[in-house]
Amino acid sequence: MTVKDQAILAKQAATLLAIASTGAKNDALAAIAKALDEHRPQILTANAKDIEAAKAAGMEAGLLDRLTLTEDRITSMIQGTREVIALEDPVGEFVSMSTRPNGLVIGKKRTPLGVIAIIYESRPNVTVDAAVLCLKAGNAVVLRGGKEAIHTNTALMSIMRDALVSTEIPADALHLVQDTSRESATALMTLTGLIDVLIPRGGASLIRTVVENTKVPVIETGVGVCHVYVDAAADLQMAAEIIANAKCSRPSVCNAAECLLVHKDIAEVFLPKAKAMLDAYKVELRGDEHTRQILGACVVPAGPDDYDTEFYGYILAVKIVDSLDDALAHIRAHGTGHSECIVTDNYTASQHFLNAVDAAAVYVNASTRFTDGGMFGLGAEIGISTQKMHARGPMGLRELTCTKFVIYGNGQIR
Amino acid sequence: MTVKDQAILAKQAATLLAIASTGAKNDALAAIAKALDEHRPQILTANAKDIEAAKAAGMEAGLLDRLTLTEDRITSMIQGTREVIALEDPVGEFVSMSTRPNGLVIGKKRTPLGVIAIIYESRPNVTVDAAVLCLKAGNAVVLRGGKEAIHTNTALMSIMRDALVSTEIPADALHLVQDTSRESATALMTLTGLIDVLIPRGGASLIRTVVENTKVPVIETGVGVCHVYVDAAADLQMAAEIIANAKCSRPSVCNAAECLLVHKDIAEVFLPKAKAMLDAYKVELRGDEHTRQILGACVVPAGPDDYDTEFYGYILAVKIVDSLDDALAHIRAHGTGHSECIVTDNYTASQHFLNAVDAAAVYVNASTRFTDGGMFGLGAEIGISTQKMHARGPMGLRELTCTKFVIYGNGQIR
Repeated sequence: MTVKDQAILAKQAATLLAIASTGAKNDALAAIAKALDEHRPQILTANAKDIEAAKAAGMEAGLLDRLTLTEDRITSMIQGTREVIALEDPVGEFVSMSTRPNGLVIGKKRTPLGVIAIIYESRPNVTVDAAVLCLKAGNAVVLRGGKEAIHTNTALMSIMRDALVSTEIPADALHLVQDTSRESATALMTLTGLIDVLIPRGGASLIRTVVENTKVPVIETGVGVCHVYVDAAADLQMAAEIIANAKCSRPSVCNAAECLLVHKDIAEVFLPKAKAMLDAYKVELRGDEHTRQILGACVVPAGPDDYDTEFYGYILAVKIVDSLDDALAHIRAHGTGHSECIVTDNYTASQHFLNAVDAAAVYVNASTRFTDGGMFGLGAEIGISTQKMHARGPMGLRELTCTKFVIYGNGQIR
Repeated sequence: MTVKDQAILAKQAATLLAIASTGAKNDALAAIAKALDEHRPQILTANAKDIEAAKAAGMEAGLLDRLTLTEDRITSMIQGTREVIALEDPVGEFVSMSTRPNGLVIGKKRTPLGVIAIIYESRPNVTVDAAVLCLKAGNAVVLRGGKEAIHTNTALMSIMRDALVSTEIPADALHLVQDTSRESATALMTLTGLIDVLIPRGGASLIRTVVENTKVPVIETGVGVCHVYVDAAADLQMAAEIIANAKCSRPSVCNAAECLLVHKDIAEVFLPKAKAMLDAYKVELRGDEHTRQILGACVVPAGPDDYDTEFYGYILAVKIVDSLDDALAHIRAHGTGHSECIVTDNYTASQHFLNAVDAAAVYVNASTRFTDGGMFGLGAEIGISTQKMHARGPMGLRELTCTKFVIYGNGQIR
């Protein structure tokens, strides 16, 4: 079956899904959770094949860890599915409804997007997480995972589709693209009219490739060069704790901080304080000349790309700025519109930063690591949008829907 | 100056516009309205040049009419500008705000999109309407109109930019691309990172070209193959009035009906009734075999494309269907997701149609001609989106914004 054939089947299923009741969708999710639980050995066997192949190919430890499923990780996929059942169904919600002077009653109602395609890399839990979220919001999905996880993904998809057979939701609501070549990704990007939205989840190069080549609407996710700016009026202890947390609590994720901007007036006092906390995690600092004057030769001179890099590890770029406006200009030039933070106790500075920074999430006095669907109270998330259209920031169920106007008339003509 | 140079200047202006007060933006719009009023002769002179060239090139009457400005049409552009001043500023509105268990206060706040590019065809009023709406929503614009209106557009842009000089809003918030070749449109489509949203306004082929070639986010507008389905349980007099209005009140616009679907049970009674009303406008009917059996040889046999065509004139495709489900299947296959109507007095049929049809606007017992920002109570509109992402249906000021999360903390780390 070609990718297009799968998309056609998904489109047909989407028509049924769009009018499925919340109960029918929840029953389908419960069937998926139960089937995953019952087929744990099958999942682990398939995963072992992927891991063996990955080891043979010399995959690095970090990627290998992402690829690996364990009993606990399967439990957490099942648990995740049950949590989505508990979330409110966004479909059918009326965003607004009012009566016009001519008697027309006009409502704006949430409906599913239709068919969502997701292109992702190694982590096989995305296969379940994404399928379950899309399905709850009434969408069919076409998933295209990475080559390295193909056995695991195939097993998971087969279990989920089989689970749907006994429910009111058609199995064709869920598809996995078997071909993991570049061609299948390109095929998805050109299925105008069949794929309503394409969401790439992965590294910067995957996302750039999709954005530059797609002919279907895309939601750009995840690239995060996030800054923490420590203002002249900051509580320096709080600032040190925030940058240590933003950099070190999980450096491999997109909401981790990559760059520390420090106001010149407090740099001499603050930088040694921050360094002491970052040293506990063996963070490598890459700084400008002024930073090196204060902290010494342990700071690597920042190269031309260091202020534009998502390090995914214990490396932090550092720069001393002359003013809040300098910090804003740096963020404008180097930020990716993900999450930006000011640490300050100055009211005017905090308000100006919140207003002037153009990003999905703008913080005063809190770690950028909170940019997350769960932390923001949206429930599970499908990803973090760094674009402005449709959705911006963590995307939950509601962001997987669109609206339509429904108009109740009694013969009105214009 | 290249298109890219203009976009860079627009991006810089957008940074200032994003934090401009509503008062400053309204003052700028008032200055524009005043300047347009004061420069009427200059506008008419420039327009006369375009008309002369168009006549020499043998432009057809309909297009020539769209290109022509008169004192009344200038008044209406000025009036439109003043109406936008009166509309509520969407920027700064909080869509939601709440306190999380950890004390973080998280708000979702409307902000401008940034730089909006618009590619459009002959009508010069778009130059003013679009500039004014985008500016009120805090966006800079790069406008790329058609070759045939270049003198008029240049005059309008020059008047508007000059008007901004005396205000707090930078003149570089507004740009007109002077090069009207295909290359300048292509250039706009590739300015990733500079153009936040591109809106094509015009015929199907312009929109298709943009959607298929753009590398920047697009909002698809305007193509409308809209249906009126007359159900077995319809009030036939109401149905005839609705189809006559939907087809004939302004056939050149996208919310006009192109196809009449009739339930077989009432076709013999209804079709002659509808024909009588449509005859008053000399509407040419293109029907299936069954329709021709009922109405006779005055109905042209429908060709293979007639059910997929936006006629922009007094032509109507007609088809008799066996059931509501048949009508839904036809709309699924041939609709463009714009506006769809059922005429019925059956409750279940009306609800099923509203739920099942996947379009920007779905009507029961009212003309599709109401799909319009003004009619829906949104104020002026920038266009009608027929896509699902970001905005769907008439787009007013709010649809020219996005949101960002603002987070007030007091030292929270994760």
